[in-house]
Amino acid sequence: MKRFVFPGVIAACMSIGGANAQLADTLKGEAVDPDGTLHISDLSVPLSSLLSPEARSYMLHVLRDKPFSGGPTPTQDIKGYRARQDEIMNWFLKPIRERYPVNVEHKNIAGIYTYVVTPTDGVAPKNRNRVLLNVHGGGFVSGARTAALIESIPVASVEKIKVITIDYRMGPEYKFPAASEDVAAVYKEALKEYSPQHIGLYGCSAGGMLAAMSIAWFQKKHLPNPAAIGVLCASIGDLGGGDASFITGPLNGFSIPAGRAGSDGPAQFRPAYLSNVDPKNPLAYPINSPALVAQFPPTLLVTSTRGMEYSSAINSHNALMRAGVEAELHVWDGLPHAFWYNSDLPESREVYAVIARFFDRHFGK
Amino acid sequence: MKRFVFPGVIAACMSIGGANAQLADTLKGEAVDPDGTLHISDLSVPLSSLLSPEARSYMLHVLRDKPFSGGPTPTQDIKGYRARQDEIMNWFLKPIRERYPVNVEHKNIAGIYTYVVTPTDGVAPKNRNRVLLNVHGGGFVSGARTAALIESIPVASVEKIKVITIDYRMGPEYKFPAASEDVAAVYKEALKEYSPQHIGLYGCSAGGMLAAMSIAWFQKKHLPNPAAIGVLCASIGDLGGGDASFITGPLNGFSIPAGRAGSDGPAQFRPAYLSNVDPKNPLAYPINSPALVAQFPPTLLVTSTRGMEYSSAINSHNALMRAGVEAELHVWDGLPHAFWYNSDLPESREVYAVIARFFDRHFGK
Repeated sequence: MKRFVFPGVIAACMSIGGANAQLADTLKGEAVDPDGTLHISDLSVPLSSLLSPEARSYMLHVLRDKPFSGGPTPTQDIKGYRARQDEIMNWFLKPIRERYPVNVEHKNIAGIYTYVVTPTDGVAPKNRNRVLLNVHGGGFVSGARTAALIESIPVASVEKIKVITIDYRMGPEYKFPAASEDVAAVYKEALKEYSPQHIGLYGCSAGGMLAAMSIAWFQKKHLPNPAAIGVLCASIGDLGGGDASFITGPLNGFSIPAGRAGSDGPAQFRPAYLSNVDPKNPLAYPINSPALVAQFPPTLLVTSTRGMEYSSAINSHNALMRAGVEAELHVWDGLPHAFWYNSDLPESREVYAVIARFFDRHFGK
Repeated sequence: MKRFVFPGVIAACMSIGGANAQLADTLKGEAVDPDGTLHISDLSVPLSSLLSPEARSYMLHVLRDKPFSGGPTPTQDIKGYRARQDEIMNWFLKPIRERYPVNVEHKNIAGIYTYVVTPTDGVAPKNRNRVLLNVHGGGFVSGARTAALIESIPVASVEKIKVITIDYRMGPEYKFPAASEDVAAVYKEALKEYSPQHIGLYGCSAGGMLAAMSIAWFQKKHLPNPAAIGVLCASIGDLGGGDASFITGPLNGFSIPAGRAGSDGPAQFRPAYLSNVDPKNPLAYPINSPALVAQFPPTLLVTSTRGMEYSSAINSHNALMRAGVEAELHVWDGLPHAFWYNSDLPESREVYAVIARFFDRHFGK
């Protein structure tokens, strides 16, 4: 009997003991194309055994109730699309405002709308001359002022630090490099008040991409690096690629039609904001330039194994490491993209703590 | 039309632009049980787009040719099983011996068989008073002297350091805690010659588990921690668990029969060596004791997204981080368990460099 096994450790796993020998007997090979494409049928995947009870409850809700569906697409009706996204964001934001008491003040910086978020009981003494800049997620099309606060409030509160969240120009109205220009404009103003070693920059999803793009833009504009950046639920290149492109859609409850497998994958991230950009342009996709990657400041990467970006995120971590950049990777199992927007989850509170500890460690003296 | 999408960032990914709107139109939901179990049919997964050409070639070979199949199970014929595993290991070892010139000397330490591996052009000056201890993979049943050299030779050569690889007692002849005792015996001898801050301990797969178990055993025996440990392609608890238990089997080309989904997963690692051990026993599965986890030295974790341990590995990283331990995680996409045994892959050479840099950073002055 031919058993399809791998080096000894796997064989040992699959064959030791009577029960496992029975299992091994029932295994059959899957169809494998000449190019290595696997055709997997009838795969049953329960919720990850490693989830907290709160995360389990959330995943059940997401998979079974599909709470984020509905509404027009951006191309059908951009106002309606944003209204629906803000509705979803506000569902996350409500408990965050209850849990994390902060002051939120509008401030116009270099002509750009920002919120300045500070904990109500004050910034920690060690953080008095430090600031974090946040750039929000939302696919470069939504999330302004809503996702922005989801990402800023817990971090401001947990780290007891001032966070300035930047309402950058987005698609479809604006195109690259508008957002990078806006981040640079706010950064230049911040540099009048804080040394670069006392400034951090972070964002989630499109915001994570934008944090990486901003480093490229700062280099181009001869601005010094901030102390560190957080590229959360994102990568320093495209969000898609790797195994995640084919696996995470199904793991979030939707099917990828058979036959769409191709090297680019079905879930390419091609927002209107980036529609005029060459995918090899390092100003938008820094991973394309090893020389640029080598210039990155210390970088935090956070991802999860049911997020479509997880392959590109771990690949970004390796690219930064190869380039000699100090890069820190944290991954959570069985959770979807941007899971940490949900403050009910202990896992999300771990992410807030990871972000806080990372910047605290990398701020200069 | 009801689209099954997630917060805005996903919606943006799936709906921006005409082509993606068409894709969104064709998406359909998958069957989801009340407990959150997904039933995925007809999933096509190509090789990861992020693989090097060498890794792509290797994965094609593994998936299509099934080069590691054949031979008896350990329970059928332990000698035959080990002979077959050694044959597989020697396939990896041959190019390693050609690429990495080392001296390999047998040395009996405290009654235990070891190899002492040193680079032929000598240990680096900074490493003269340092040593790495290796404990090999092989499911606690095989890999002695073969996997042991696969794991030791490249590291000794790349880091220019002495590596002592320990031929610890394994199943089915021996049971826990025999291997932990053997590691402790060699460690005690090493402590006569090296300060603990100049000793590192690492292993792959069963060896990674054993490195973690050894910390638990050292605590029990009031031995000081080594400078750092490497838990490679393993975790500080069980190897199984999480999404990996259900996904990685199919991603390596074998089907998990439908209906076997359960919280433990189909690929539980229950070698004869651990058959007498309570899965909650922290001496064998340290993750069960947060107090013990907090005592861990700096820990390196390496895994890959088609390895069955990847969920438990990333979970271990988070457990160590929560306990305040300095822990470093590196993940490679689309590669199987213990991929770095294959020295043809640039990814494997990245792993050797990661190991070298990690220990170099954590050795004491």
